[in-house]
Amino acid sequence: MRTLRSVLVDIDGVLCTGGAAIPRSIDALAILRGQGVGVRFLTNTSRQTRAGIVQQLHSIGFLQQRGLRPHLLVNPQLLPEFDGITTDHPNAVVVGDAAEGFTYAAMNAAMRILLEAPDAPLIAIARNRYFRAGEGLCLDAGPYVAALEYACDVRAELTGKPAAAIFLAALDDLQTTPDQAAMIGDDLEGDVLGAQAVGLQGILVRTGKYRPSDETGVKARADLVVEDFYTAVARGCR
Amino acid sequence: MRTLRSVLVDIDGVLCTGGAAIPRSIDALAILRGQGVGVRFLTNTSRQTRAGIVQQLHSIGFLQQRGLRPHLLVNPQLLPEFDGITTDHPNAVVVGDAAEGFTYAAMNAAMRILLEAPDAPLIAIARNRYFRAGEGLCLDAGPYVAALEYACDVRAELTGKPAAAIFLAALDDLQTTPDQAAMIGDDLEGDVLGAQAVGLQGILVRTGKYRPSDETGVKARADLVVEDFYTAVARGCR
Repeated sequence: MRTLRSVLVDIDGVLCTGGAAIPRSIDALAILRGQGVGVRFLTNTSRQTRAGIVQQLHSIGFLQQRGLRPHLLVNPQLLPEFDGITTDHPNAVVVGDAAEGFTYAAMNAAMRILLEAPDAPLIAIARNRYFRAGEGLCLDAGPYVAALEYACDVRAELTGKPAAAIFLAALDDLQTTPDQAAMIGDDLEGDVLGAQAVGLQGILVRTGKYRPSDETGVKARADLVVEDFYTAVARGCR
Repeated sequence: MRTLRSVLVDIDGVLCTGGAAIPRSIDALAILRGQGVGVRFLTNTSRQTRAGIVQQLHSIGFLQQRGLRPHLLVNPQLLPEFDGITTDHPNAVVVGDAAEGFTYAAMNAAMRILLEAPDAPLIAIARNRYFRAGEGLCLDAGPYVAALEYACDVRAELTGKPAAAIFLAALDDLQTTPDQAAMIGDDLEGDVLGAQAVGLQGILVRTGKYRPSDETGVKARADLVVEDFYTAVARGCR
């Protein structure tokens, strides 16, 4: 990472997992900062992190500009962020990591909106497959986005990773070009592939939702696979 | 339908909808029978119909032969049909029209089985997108199958329509070749496309889950589109 000016870091599964900090991740952050490497957090798990909430607020501006009244399938903890958004007579569906909020009734309501108004957009805050919680792997937004896409024969618009705009906005903020930056994450598609698609180095850590098959698949390959965030920093800075 | 020896008929949306018989559908059945046309019911909505349950029983034999212990995401009314099937330590996931049974917890359990045992099959009783109930269109098995396929990067095995085996088994039972038979249904993909793929005529009715866009899409086209089952029979027998 000697030649890198900036590093984008996923939070859940890289810094912490299941509510606990991952060993040495705070040390790794301190090393990066001590070397003057720019750091930005990029997360799709917008329950606990300020970075995630800021990202959501961008999504809200995006809704207001287009006059969209969303049916919200998002995590209940995120709902206050949507205050001031009209949700009566919805003409759009927004899908995040709603977890237990993915009830059959809420999914049916979403489907009916999309079927009844062919122009109603399906907006995905993320397409992640799953995340790791205390009790094991849990379905993230992606599979439910896929369910609605299948049910209604539509394609979702993506506002979160791996959308190129998310990575490019962070780089712009850091005044860094893609060839001077790396993304470190535990999600092969959302983090690594998304970053590679816009020219960043994609580094996969073996923490969080990582599974050994992430290294053997034919569809995607990380530029570097390391034990954890600290190792990524140590390897890059040796 | 003069030259047809046999007709396969979907039940939900063709004979009845939202629990009520569709006008003249019983008359249409009587006409077919009076003319000696072979009739078989092919349904994926296996909650109320004996035909559906028989189909399920075939699926169960299919599970036993392969030593599969399924995690069942099926309609609660169907569960008694799975008596005698071991479901401890599941090594397979079976998805039907579970409706309110599609809880986040049940879907997470299904995902974990598929991720932890790469050989565990995902078995779809159907891939239908939605069905029409009293309160409107409701998500059927298909979108939830798509969700698990996306989450686990697997492809489901299909035991119901539009699987070719379902149509061919019915024709075999009727001792009829595909060119002598038609399928009448309200589901463009499950009924019409599935039937056409094995050489039957595919007739779409404008009852049940039919939507006008079923006639204008570019992906699929029915051989004949008619108001209802009675009209299909009357047109075919004129």
